[in-house]
Parts: sequence; C-alpha cells; structure tokens
Amino acid sequence: MKTYRDLSPSPRTIMTPGPVEVDPRVLRAMSFSILGQFDPEFTDIMNETMDMIRVLFQTNNHWAFSVDGTSRSGIEAVLTSLIEPGDRVLVPIYGRFGHLLVEIAERCGADISTMEQEWGQVFDPEQVVKRIRQERPDIVAIVHGETSTGRMQPLKEIGKACRELDVLLVVDAVATVGGTKVATDEWMLDAVIGGTQKCLSVPAGMAPVTYNERAEAKILKRKRIERGLRDPQTETGWSGKGIQSNYLDLSQLQDYWSPVRLNHHTEATSMLYALREGLRLVLEEGLEQRFARHLEHEAALVAGIRAMGLTLFGDPDCKMPMVTCVNIPDGVDGESVRAMLLHEFGIEIASSFGALKGKIWRIGTMGYSCNKKNVLHLLGALEAALLRHRVPVHIGAASQAALDVYRRKANTYE
Amino acid sequence: MKTYRDLSPSPRTIMTPGPVEVDPRVLRAMSFSILGQFDPEFTDIMNETMDMIRVLFQTNNHWAFSVDGTSRSGIEAVLTSLIEPGDRVLVPIYGRFGHLLVEIAERCGADISTMEQEWGQVFDPEQVVKRIRQERPDIVAIVHGETSTGRMQPLKEIGKACRELDVLLVVDAVATVGGTKVATDEWMLDAVIGGTQKCLSVPAGMAPVTYNERAEAKILKRKRIERGLRDPQTETGWSGKGIQSNYLDLSQLQDYWSPVRLNHHTEATSMLYALREGLRLVLEEGLEQRFARHLEHEAALVAGIRAMGLTLFGDPDCKMPMVTCVNIPDGVDGESVRAMLLHEFGIEIASSFGALKGKIWRIGTMGYSCNKKNVLHLLGALEAALLRHRVPVHIGAASQAALDVYRRKANTYE
Repeated sequence: MKTYRDLSPSPRTIMTPGPVEVDPRVLRAMSFSILGQFDPEFTDIMNETMDMIRVLFQTNNHWAFSVDGTSRSGIEAVLTSLIEPGDRVLVPIYGRFGHLLVEIAERCGADISTMEQEWGQVFDPEQVVKRIRQERPDIVAIVHGETSTGRMQPLKEIGKACRELDVLLVVDAVATVGGTKVATDEWMLDAVIGGTQKCLSVPAGMAPVTYNERAEAKILKRKRIERGLRDPQTETGWSGKGIQSNYLDLSQLQDYWSPVRLNHHTEATSMLYALREGLRLVLEEGLEQRFARHLEHEAALVAGIRAMGLTLFGDPDCKMPMVTCVNIPDGVDGESVRAMLLHEFGIEIASSFGALKGKIWRIGTMGYSCNKKNVLHLLGALEAALLRHRVPVHIGAASQAALDVYRRKANTYE
Repeated sequence: MKTYRDLSPSPRTIMTPGPVEVDPRVLRAMSFSILGQFDPEFTDIMNETMDMIRVLFQTNNHWAFSVDGTSRSGIEAVLTSLIEPGDRVLVPIYGRFGHLLVEIAERCGADISTMEQEWGQVFDPEQVVKRIRQERPDIVAIVHGETSTGRMQPLKEIGKACRELDVLLVVDAVATVGGTKVATDEWMLDAVIGGTQKCLSVPAGMAPVTYNERAEAKILKRKRIERGLRDPQTETGWSGKGIQSNYLDLSQLQDYWSPVRLNHHTEATSMLYALREGLRLVLEEGLEQRFARHLEHEAALVAGIRAMGLTLFGDPDCKMPMVTCVNIPDGVDGESVRAMLLHEFGIEIASSFGALKGKIWRIGTMGYSCNKKNVLHLLGALEAALLRHRVPVHIGAASQAALDVYRRKANTYE
C-alpha cells in the first residue's frame, strides 16, 4: 500500500484576497483537545463567540453565530432561510460575487431582478434606491466588498431606503468584515455574512452571520422542528413551503445556538476554537486600530506599485482598502509572473475572473497578511519578477516609496 | 470592553458516540501554516486525500472527496444532488437518523415512503428487498450505523437488490466508517457519506463522501455551471430543475476536486490537513487491525458493564461495535449520573433521543477514544458514580471482567 509522508507545507507569504495567512495564535488554538458539543465548557465558548461576533459586526442583534461551512455556506444559509419561492429579490451586481448571490437566490426559487454596473465601478447609492422604490422587492442582496474587482459599495443610503420601504437588506461582507467598517446597526443592514479566511485571518470553514428581528420574523414564519426531534402530537412537520435546506436552516441553527441547544449538526469544535481566537485578537487590537492598519499598508503598497510604474485597475473612489488590483502591463503573461512569485519567492497573489482574467493581478492585504514585512517583500519580489519578464520598471523605486509611507509613522534610518 | 481569557479546554475522556477525542497528531496537523487553495502543494494534498478516502470506503470510485461542513452537510449534499423533485425515495427507519434522512429528502421535494422498525432492532434485509421490489423507488436511503439506538443494518442484500432493479442506494455511514467494514463496492452502495468526528477521530467540520458512476450520471444530468463562471455564449443557466443548493452541489464540487479546479468555495485548509492526517493514521494502522481494535475494546466494555450488573439495550445480533447502549436502572436519574461522570471524572457519555431519552446511556468506543485506558477509566468511574446514586452494583467486578478480556491478548500481572 502507498504510504503518505508527514504533512509539511512550505512557508508562504499569502497576499491574495483570501485565504490569507493565519495568525499563529489561531493555529495554536486549533491544536487544543476538543470538548463535547454539549459540554458546559464548550457552550460557554459558543456564547463567548456570539458576543465577539456582535462586536465584529458592530451590532446589538441577538442572533450572531457561525455557520459550519465556508463563507458561501453562510450566504446560502441566509438566502435560503429568508427567500420563499416567488419572493422578489433585487441584486445589484458589480462583480463576480454579485452573480453568486443571483446564483444562490435563483436556486431558492426567487423572482430575481438585477442591475449591473461595469466592473471596476460601484453603484451610485441613489441609483439603487431609485430602483428599490420602483420595484419594491421583498429582499435586496448586495456585496459590500467585491474582491473580483477590488471595489466597495457604500451601503448607508441603501440601508435607510430599505428600512423605510420595509425591504430586507442582505449584505455579503465576507471580504470586508474585520478590515474596514461594517456597521450593521448604523447602516440598517438586516442580515450580514462575514468571512473567516480574509480579514479575520482564521482558516476557511466557518461563516459568521448576524441578523436582526426583522429577518428573524421572516425566518420563524418558515420554521419547522426537525423530524425525529419534534413532538408528533403538537408540532407540525414539513408542508412544502418551509426552508429547503436542513443543514443551512437558520431557524434550526438559532435553536442550537440558544439555551434550548436543540440538537442539529455536531459543532465543528476546532474551527470554533479558531474563530473564537481570531475574534479575540480582533478585539485585542481594536476595530478602529485594525481598520487604520489596513489603510496604512494599503497606502504603502499602492505607493510602491505606482512608483514601480504600474497602474491600478478600477475607480479609486471606491477601492477596497484590503484589495489592490494592478493592471497587467501589455504583452506580459500574468500567469507566468504569478508562478514565478510563488515558486521563486514563496509569494501568492491572485488573478481574477471573467473578462478581467489575464488583465489584472489582485493583491490582498488582509488581516495577519497585512503587515510591513509582507508589503516590502512583495514589492521587491514583484520588481524582480517583472525584470525577469523584461518589463521596464523604475528599478528600486517601489521599496523606497513604500518606506516613505511607513516613515510618516515610524522612526527612520536616515 | 470585556476581555476574554486564553482558550484552555479541560482534559476530557470523551466516550460518546461522537464527537470523540482527536488524535494529537491530527490536532498538530491543524497547527501548520495554511496554503492557498490553488497552490500546487495544496492541490497535491487534496489529491492524496481523495486517494485515502477511497481506501477508507473500500472503493475504486473515481469520486471520493470531502464536503466542507459537518456530517449532515455530506448527507444533504448527496441527497440534494441526487433527488429531483418528485423522485420516489424509500427510507427504512430504525432510529433518529433515519428520520433525518426523511427530513432532508422531504426538503428536496422527494415523494417519500418509509418503513419503520422498532428502536433497538434493524430490518431483516429481505423485508427491505421485498418493499423495494414492490415500490420500485428511484432511491433508497438508509443508515448503516444508527447511533441513537446503537444498531447496525446489514446492507449487502439490499445493495444487490438495488443494483438489480436499477435503484440508487444512498448510505449514511457517518458513525461506522473507519471503525467497521463499509464495503462500498462489494456491497454495491451507490453513494456513501462518512463522518470525521467518530471513528476517524478528526474534529467535526468535514464530511467525506464517495459515489459511483451510476450516481454521477444522475448528478450530471442536473448540472449547471455557476453564473459568473460559465460562458454565457455556450452554457445554459438555471432552469428551475437543477440542484437546489449551490454550496452542496456535487456537480460543482467534483469540478473543484478535479484538475479543472473550477472555483467554488474556498477549501477549509486546516480541516483538510486534519482529515488527511486522520486518514493517514487509519492507513498506517490498517483497516482490518482498526476494526479488530474496535471489537476488542467493545468486548471489554460490554464484559465490564454486564459484570457490574447492568443490562444492555437492544438486539445483540445487530449491535454496533463502536456504540454500547446501557439500560438506565429503574429509578435512577440518568442525567445526574452523566453530570457526575463529567464534572467529577472528566468523562462524557451520552443520553439518547425521543422515546429512549432517560431510558438508556450510550457509550462510544470510537477511533482514538477506543482504547484500554478509556474503557477501564470509564468502568471504574461509572461504578463509583452509581454507588453514589445508591445503585446496587457488583463492586469491583467491572474492571476485573474487562481485564479478563484484555488478558486474552496481553501479558498479565497474575
């Protein structure tokens, strides 16, 4: 029989828009021995995690917990729990992940309308608000930070309009939460999904979500207690109109995350340890300080990229602080440069999707990966890789430009 | 702001029917730094994991990979990918998790028929085969090892009949795989779902699955490439008849797990490290040796329980080797005994569901938790806890009886 060697992953500097490097303290947390899912010590950990998710999403919502799956499991849990077949759902699309919202909403039986913005731009909020007023959809679903294009959509005006018109607003904040402001309550977002493997720097495999009483009311209308757990005398079963997933049924998950502790799945213990530790580190750093750190390293990266002679993709007014999209110079094989960065320098950056494939590189500065060492390492490596690909760059300029940005804060060697 | 202390879970001897203790080598694997999901080193790890899942399920199936969620996400992925609305699905039920199969199949729009066996028994396979011949369902879904009652259903005759009649057979082997024979090919099972947090002793959070070409053919008929990834010129979108989940869509997941590597979710890196290491340890031990180990510790546990004067629940002819159900003596508060075991001795055992709640305790001997130290610790602790609850037991007999079982294999101190 074939034998398999010990796991021994090479060290990597991961500067994609996710997954990114995991804080060693989070990795360490996963190596603790597990607890049973109904062990009081474990349910305390679940409750602490709920508290910290509330801080992360800047909300007082009662419901704030994690779905046991990757980010898109959280998106699907929210959409499949909220959307009744025939519900009218409006999805403003400005990149690949807007299409994903449509994809999932379609499978929930939604009656969907879309509006599309050119990739590299976002919507003028008034344009979306106008469409909401015209159509009066049941639900609006929108991406906060679109990693495929590196753009971030302002949400405040859209949230206000949805609340006035009694429309539910669902927001995919997978790429932004923990890296920039996601003000669930202030912006009047009804349900928000976060990601672990981006600005939280926790491995993929859990999806923190939060939703308010407006969303809960709709979910509870569709609730059925699981067959085999419900009392056949008093509780009714499936009528064909309920939530089409069991695994991603928020009405059941919230019972599992409440003192009722109604058995559902077996909580993913080690991933929850990781999420709790990742959240603890966010709180330790402080949200505002964390957002400022993302801005600082973005500034250094952007200064370096520009000094090298490269140009940035997309409208700068709506750039995500944690994703920088770089136009691949004409005639350069972007995949060859990426491969050289990975195999020679141990650095991973990303390409993009659809029409942008081969046109842009996407560089992430997220969470633990968002640090000076990584930014300077990448700028030096990218310069060297471009020189090897015979691209004329301003040799030596990138690192100096980045150091100038950092000089504003730190002492220097001059 | 509230501060949260360092994670510091208490040591536990976990003898429930899952989740159970995790091998320290698996815990260590999760602490390695992560790799990007399309890093060639990582896709090598994905491929190795597929190879090992095939060994685990004793199959030559091409498709053998993991779903990023807990066991029930694997069950739902298989059922939601296979069941078209209106498909006739037969579910023989002999415990709680049979009801879960019905619950999930209902939500997929199946036309369901059930047959029920008294809890504590399994079906005579001929009885199921007869029903299949009568009804000619599209799919039969059945649990292999029903942890709620500790029973194991023989599948060979059912598999043969399903193949003859061109019925797809889906098997929930969450609790049995890695602990006893699950002969996917020999028994002609079309799709099988395993669990990580039971006999594999990997934390919950992934679900290994395998399916053959018969199942794949049905899944591919329902396939749609994701909006935002498909070519709008040549590929068609959602028609309302496809797979209702995106996250659990096996037709998309198999593209992600194939050289196509079509982007889907972000693979749960650290959980995959854990699964790979858990599988590596299964192969290192050897399947047959592993099954024998589960039988040996079961024998010791059962001898000890009986010697103490307690009785076992359920038909002994179909007992699962890795779950032992003990009748709670009349007048004893089972939950009080369980709480004492946990809080005084650091041992967790389980209660049960539905009509068996308060009637039986369920003791797991699964994977890493299936060892001599745990069995002897539990027997001593249970005796002490029962004495504190004024239950007349044969004092000192349990440990001696278990030691006698172990004496057959090992040297003794006599």
